[in-house]
Amino acid sequence: MENQKLWGGRFSASAAEILDEFNASLPFDKKLYKQDILGSQTHAKMLAKCGILTQSEAEKICEGLEQVKEEMERGEFEFILSDEDIHMAVEKRLTQIIGEVGKKLHTARSRNDQVALDFRLFVLDSNDNLRVLLLELIDTLLEIAKQHTQTMLPGMTHLQHAQPVNFGFLMCAYVSMFARDFERLESSFRRNNFCPLGAAALAGTPYATDRFFTAQTLGFIAPTLNATDSVSDRDFALDFLYDCSMIAMHISRLAEELVLWSSYEFKFITLSDAYSTGSSIMPQKKNPDVPELLRGKSGRVYGNLLSLLVVMKGLPLAYNKDTQEDKEGVFDSFETLSIALRILKDTLQTMTINTDSMLKACKKGHLSATDLADFLVQTCGIPFREAHHITGKAVAFAESLDKDLSDLSAEELCSVDSAIPQEAHKSLDLEASMNSRNSYGGTSTQATKTQIESLEAWLQLAKKALQDSKEPQNAK
Amino acid sequence: MENQKLWGGRFSASAAEILDEFNASLPFDKKLYKQDILGSQTHAKMLAKCGILTQSEAEKICEGLEQVKEEMERGEFEFILSDEDIHMAVEKRLTQIIGEVGKKLHTARSRNDQVALDFRLFVLDSNDNLRVLLLELIDTLLEIAKQHTQTMLPGMTHLQHAQPVNFGFLMCAYVSMFARDFERLESSFRRNNFCPLGAAALAGTPYATDRFFTAQTLGFIAPTLNATDSVSDRDFALDFLYDCSMIAMHISRLAEELVLWSSYEFKFITLSDAYSTGSSIMPQKKNPDVPELLRGKSGRVYGNLLSLLVVMKGLPLAYNKDTQEDKEGVFDSFETLSIALRILKDTLQTMTINTDSMLKACKKGHLSATDLADFLVQTCGIPFREAHHITGKAVAFAESLDKDLSDLSAEELCSVDSAIPQEAHKSLDLEASMNSRNSYGGTSTQATKTQIESLEAWLQLAKKALQDSKEPQNAK
Amino acid sequence: MENQKLWGGRFSASAAEILDEFNASLPFDKKLYKQDILGSQTHAKMLAKCGILTQSEAEKICEGLEQVKEEMERGEFEFILSDEDIHMAVEKRLTQIIGEVGKKLHTARSRNDQVALDFRLFVLDSNDNLRVLLLELIDTLLEIAKQHTQTMLPGMTHLQHAQPVNFGFLMCAYVSMFARDFERLESSFRRNNFCPLGAAALAGTPYATDRFFTAQTLGFIAPTLNATDSVSDRDFALDFLYDCSMIAMHISRLAEELVLWSSYEFKFITLSDAYSTGSSIMPQKKNPDVPELLRGKSGRVYGNLLSLLVVMKGLPLAYNKDTQEDKEGVFDSFETLSIALRILKDTLQTMTINTDSMLKACKKGHLSATDLADFLVQTCGIPFREAHHITGKAVAFAESLDKDLSDLSAEELCSVDSAIPQEAHKSLDLEASMNSRNSYGGTSTQATKTQIESLEAWLQLAKKALQDSKEPQNAK
Amino acid sequence: MENQKLWGGRFSASAAEILDEFNASLPFDKKLYKQDILGSQTHAKMLAKCGILTQSEAEKICEGLEQVKEEMERGEFEFILSDEDIHMAVEKRLTQIIGEVGKKLHTARSRNDQVALDFRLFVLDSNDNLRVLLLELIDTLLEIAKQHTQTMLPGMTHLQHAQPVNFGFLMCAYVSMFARDFERLESSFRRNNFCPLGAAALAGTPYATDRFFTAQTLGFIAPTLNATDSVSDRDFALDFLYDCSMIAMHISRLAEELVLWSSYEFKFITLSDAYSTGSSIMPQKKNPDVPELLRGKSGRVYGNLLSLLVVMKGLPLAYNKDTQEDKEGVFDSFETLSIALRILKDTLQTMTINTDSMLKACKKGHLSATDLADFLVQTCGIPFREAHHITGKAVAFAESLDKDLSDLSAEELCSVDSAIPQEAHKSLDLEASMNSRNSYGGTSTQATKTQIESLEAWLQLAKKALQDSKEPQNAK
Repeated sequence: MENQKLWGGRFSASAAEILDEFNASLPFDKKLYKQDILGSQTHAKMLAKCGILTQSEAEKICEGLEQVKEEMERGEFEFILSDEDIHMAVEKRLTQIIGEVGKKLHTARSRNDQVALDFRLFVLDSNDNLRVLLLELIDTLLEIAKQHTQTMLPGMTHLQHAQPVNFGFLMCAYVSMFARDFERLESSFRRNNFCPLGAAALAGTPYATDRFFTAQTLGFIAPTLNATDSVSDRDFALDFLYDCSMIAMHISRLAEELVLWSSYEFKFITLSDAYSTGSSIMPQKKNPDVPELLRGKSGRVYGNLLSLLVVMKGLPLAYNKDTQEDKEGVFDSFETLSIALRILKDTLQTMTINTDSMLKACKKGHLSATDLADFLVQTCGIPFREAHHITGKAVAFAESLDKDLSDLSAEELCSVDSAIPQEAHKSLDLEASMNSRNSYGGTSTQATKTQIESLEAWLQLAKKALQDSKEPQNAK
Repeated sequence: MENQKLWGGRFSASAAEILDEFNASLPFDKKLYKQDILGSQTHAKMLAKCGILTQSEAEKICEGLEQVKEEMERGEFEFILSDEDIHMAVEKRLTQIIGEVGKKLHTARSRNDQVALDFRLFVLDSNDNLRVLLLELIDTLLEIAKQHTQTMLPGMTHLQHAQPVNFGFLMCAYVSMFARDFERLESSFRRNNFCPLGAAALAGTPYATDRFFTAQTLGFIAPTLNATDSVSDRDFALDFLYDCSMIAMHISRLAEELVLWSSYEFKFITLSDAYSTGSSIMPQKKNPDVPELLRGKSGRVYGNLLSLLVVMKGLPLAYNKDTQEDKEGVFDSFETLSIALRILKDTLQTMTINTDSMLKACKKGHLSATDLADFLVQTCGIPFREAHHITGKAVAFAESLDKDLSDLSAEELCSVDSAIPQEAHKSLDLEASMNSRNSYGGTSTQATKTQIESLEAWLQLAKKALQDSKEPQNAK
Repeated sequence: MENQKLWGGRFSASAAEILDEFNASLPFDKKLYKQDILGSQTHAKMLAKCGILTQSEAEKICEGLEQVKEEMERGEFEFILSDEDIHMAVEKRLTQIIGEVGKKLHTARSRNDQVALDFRLFVLDSNDNLRVLLLELIDTLLEIAKQHTQTMLPGMTHLQHAQPVNFGFLMCAYVSMFARDFERLESSFRRNNFCPLGAAALAGTPYATDRFFTAQTLGFIAPTLNATDSVSDRDFALDFLYDCSMIAMHISRLAEELVLWSSYEFKFITLSDAYSTGSSIMPQKKNPDVPELLRGKSGRVYGNLLSLLVVMKGLPLAYNKDTQEDKEGVFDSFETLSIALRILKDTLQTMTINTDSMLKACKKGHLSATDLADFLVQTCGIPFREAHHITGKAVAFAESLDKDLSDLSAEELCSVDSAIPQEAHKSLDLEASMNSRNSYGGTSTQATKTQIESLEAWLQLAKKALQDSKEPQNAK
Repeated sequence: MENQKLWGGRFSASAAEILDEFNASLPFDKKLYKQDILGSQTHAKMLAKCGILTQSEAEKICEGLEQVKEEMERGEFEFILSDEDIHMAVEKRLTQIIGEVGKKLHTARSRNDQVALDFRLFVLDSNDNLRVLLLELIDTLLEIAKQHTQTMLPGMTHLQHAQPVNFGFLMCAYVSMFARDFERLESSFRRNNFCPLGAAALAGTPYATDRFFTAQTLGFIAPTLNATDSVSDRDFALDFLYDCSMIAMHISRLAEELVLWSSYEFKFITLSDAYSTGSSIMPQKKNPDVPELLRGKSGRVYGNLLSLLVVMKGLPLAYNKDTQEDKEGVFDSFETLSIALRILKDTLQTMTINTDSMLKACKKGHLSATDLADFLVQTCGIPFREAHHITGKAVAFAESLDKDLSDLSAEELCSVDSAIPQEAHKSLDLEASMNSRNSYGGTSTQATKTQIESLEAWLQLAKKALQDSKEPQNAK
């Protein structure tokens, strides 16, 4: 009796148990209890404001809901599968506490718009949270960057030594990625910051409600425009899942570098023991499990995006039960990235940067070859394509001597081609090479510092924007 | 002390708590406890057989493991996150129970091959289980098919009425799909039925082990051939995830039909109240939640496949921690399909087939148009393309009268084109039309019965094959 | 000799032919010739402005490039696979035309930043183009909406009749989706509107270049901040592919409705003959091929997104050849959506809306059930959950009489439950039901008109914003 | 007139041009012309055998089709978009050549089963072709393996040095993967080797056809069982796309190794100049473009699998136009892998294996740590977990001296822990370490040779099986 389905009026047979198990969203949507109760309290206030409930009814409901929330927060609430979803679980308990008036809460709304609200609030909260974590990660990367604008290592393309760069410069590349991730989240937030509550089942309600009051009270920009779209729209969740996929992709790239850099072959960094693990069979192993897992998590996050895209494909209007499949992937992507961003930050903060190994590595791969070519162009007026060709011969010559290009003597260098003058030899110096790349965005120490300054200014603005955006929306 | 990491010898700092949370697989891989313990018991027996352990040591270990298993089965075992994974959790408890000898179990193996074994056993078990469920579903579909070889409804292409078919014939189409799913699982099982245990960390072991004994005891065909491949291979999991995706896809198609057929527009079936749900706001609603969810579940299952494909992309040999991301998707796809296949079967068994509505629908869409065209070809020797053209005119004429083609009088029909003889009129009869399609695989009642017989013969063979395959592999 | 690789200085063996076939991007990146030439011309101007080229060298280069462009536009240019990519093809021809000075063009840049520029220009152009097409589609949808704010049809949830809505209201739901798509593209445009040229290979250049000049001339906001990020970043392409996926998803939903609506069962619309196809074998068929293909295209567009996400996973800095796989998916998604959006618009414009069939369908499914429940709540003060229960009984009663709820007489209605008063009968009127849902975003004719007004205002703003954004960026 | 749509009888308006462009499959399905013509010739023979055509009609048709095929092979055939698809294009030309009798060919079939046949033939052909290429690749890998069973290098887990292995052993790991790919293709072939022709539109035909004749003549096992399934089934294409994804995944793993191994840090291999490329700006660069592209191609191939899974989701029976989206992804995956498998083989055959660098690398990472631990267990009777701990201390000690464990003197080693005896020192020898792993599947030279023998035996069987399977099916 207690658990009798609330919509059971017209049904003759009782639902099979397997149906409950298959159909119920409660096992996962109970995560939305805070959003559900906040939404209900706001709804009650709106109903009172519009004279649909009395003020005292609304107060009774709000207080009852507060009590339900506390029971849930304290872990005392017993969730029963046959309640189907968090909305039913909350409302049933509310009615137990405050009696018949509890049943009036569901006026002028439906579970369709209710879950659309709860879930949207959750997604916007999560969006906020990830942005905070991104800024903390960026903070850490910039700290490292500042300390290493002179730490030279081989810049790579195709995983081949290309040109000398500084480590701070590489950190700035990753900051650029995560800054775009922040901005992408920000625009997703803005685009989806509208309140679906009041759309009711699919077509609005005959009650004279005030959806602007509800929207404003909950911190939204405005109510959504069309009721049918409101209950079937999951763009906000997809946008979030895509934003998560991009973060996961960027993380996987940095993680790949950490794995490479901590290998015996590279030795550019040493991960802290606190963020490494060992082998149960090989006593000497120190494994970069954290970056490996960070890299692998991309699979899960991409999968969650795809899943919801598939679910939404070809669904006619308005609400379809398929849409219930929207939540678990979002929960999983959010939780995955919450911990991933934190542990990545910790890993970066605690790793040792082996500047000596980095420097030593610069002596391999003829990193100053481009400089020689550029010298031939700039000083000797040789067209670039020809200078490129001459330098190629110099590299082949150095390799034939088992030397790095930068180790050739001036005589050796000149012997390669009659077009190479004596003074070309100085173009082979590695540090000079790095600092010569002083164009906007380049890798010279000075250009790198400029980048760091720009990124720090951006960071301050981003922090402020995040704080501001959260103020009026204290609900979320 | 108790929870000290077992591989901690060379580490100076203790692992951060967040690392445990991020790194540990225990929260999900504890699902593998049965497989882990069975594998360990078999390993102990092999070590004894090869003289690496004494017989009594092996017995002590096996009994101790039995006790651990019982504790886990009774839910008494307390899993502690810092144990990292199920292997550690089991071994630690084993050592508590039987003392130092427990530590000898991990001889000649590594966690790399241990998890490869546990997970493979799980996947092969799950493969078996899904095949059982597929056969039960096929059984149900064939039962329905047998009862409805004369139940006429409009066969559709492009969701447009095309030609009259019988409902049993359509059921046979779905049986064909699920039969392929069964065979796909079967060949995945066979291709992956090899035992990785004994590969150790990545390169085999110096102990004189007998991997064939282990493989045979556990019901595998043989041990895997190459140790490094053994610990990094996840093809068995991917094959399973793909097989699941195909099942989910076929389910989504049948589910789409159930949703369509139970709409007011079609009314071809009525879902049982026990497998439908209502609306919290619209009292008249009876929603096909089950088929909708079945359709939507495809997203999740596809996502799991993609996730692991992404994880495996570009991983060098041998074991990498990324691979730990292999399990949750498999668990989820298996559980999703386990319940989906059962609830789909129940839904089909309990639905009402509205034969009247189906028959009535045949009167729309000029279903016998092809028959008229065929008549013109076969009886009047008109080339098909021309017959097609003439029939098109007849359809247009019928529509101009707001009639179905099958409702035209002989006079009306002949008036369309001088090439149409009087006796062409009888080609418009719908039942005759259906039964005329008597070619192999066609929709005549007789041809449908032939299909049902073939499929039932297949079913008997499949049941037998499944039973046989399970006998020697009682472990799995 | 002619086709000798430009980077071939240090290589002893000539590249295998299969390498050309596998490696060359020319077969697809020749699509970028306009962007490539525009970028090169701008680069030459910048080099002249900075004194790296003489004014006359730059002019010669610009004119030569103009000639190359014309040859390509006229289809006279012979693309040779061994030229590898569009950059090589253009430069080689330039040098043939203007001689040695052509080789100076490649100063202070690399193919890495060159392709990053070309492709980004293409993506931003495509972004603009899709936004234009979206606005045209929205225009069409709003035209239809305006004509059908009183055209009643059954609003559906779970593909079951739910509440009466008007057709214009449903069109507004789709406008809401496509408007979000527009805004999503717009923010992608803004976030990625930065110029990578001048990043050179990965680390900037030693030349005193002016990247702000290049950026501004090409219509970008500014140059990108970090050279290494600039050459490895493909976020702009991923953002575009995601935006395309969302459009494709929304299209697939509307397409599904068109397929359903044009079925014999629904008959809500009739597609124009010009946008339908027939069957080669069934003369009566008129198939909704266009909406079916529109629905199916989602697969391709999702696949393109996924592909690039997979490519980028785990790539270390900076440029890696894997990234060459970025283009074909973008070209395909853009072309797919370009035609899809146009043909969807045409299909909508030319279809017939069968208002009679829609109205007739409203008589099925007890669409006014919620109204009865609401009446009981509002007029009789019965709590909603109880009213829902009583209405459920009324529906069951109507079904037992084989009637729609709206066809019950007042007496019949009152006989269901003593709580139902005589005047409740008027709540069953369907048009009144629809118009009672007059809340913001609701389906009443009036509320729908309000939505249309809002959307038209949005459309005007969007058109203006699009035009404004294109003016300064005439290059793109 | 010439291009008038063949199904146009009932249509009043002519199809819009944009419809042709959107709807036509001819631009890509013309690739199926051989399969289409072979299928039609076989169909004609069957019709003659069954008395539906006269023998001379069939011969005329077969000869006419032969002529069409030759025109297409010679590239003389002019494809016209308005012909829509390859079936129409062939039939129209046939009728031009042989006159009215050509129109009789389309008796007892439909484009639905025709395209199902053509595409299935193509997929089975492609399956065969990929299996040939896999065996060639395996051949190459085994050749390399045989030459390098004593070539020692550090076996890695987590990209950390783990235990010494030989290079042949690693090659065997990849052979194992590609052998599974072969077997996967083989079982896909067998499962889908059934002939759909004769299913007609969706329900069979009234003609007394002989589908077994058609199936047998074309080399299939038998005709498909159910007509409706036959025209809507695309499992054969999905199976192929999944098989391709697995090959692409395995290739991406080997490609990642090639990229790593050819870096300055590893230097394990040197790619042939013929399979490398240079940089347009950095003269010293030699880039592993081929392996990078091979790695990146996984994205495209995964994407194609996903696309078709999405297309098929939720499609009701029978044929829907969405299914037309099945082909391009299959063509692309097949072509991608055809060239990828060949170029991978060439790259492997032409690369230089730097055995010295590999050996030198073994001196890093304390590769014999496990051996020391094993020695302590086996000789001193210390439980493994304790031996692991003691060895961890020895490693830490060696690192404190900046030495590799294998470089410790006996005295140094003994000083680590009193439990270490003098003779433990010999366990640190690297070659002994490798060869001690002599268990089945292990890395000792002997165990590796055993693996090579097994794999060569498998290869011979596979070659024979492939040849046998092709003989009776000379059509495919």
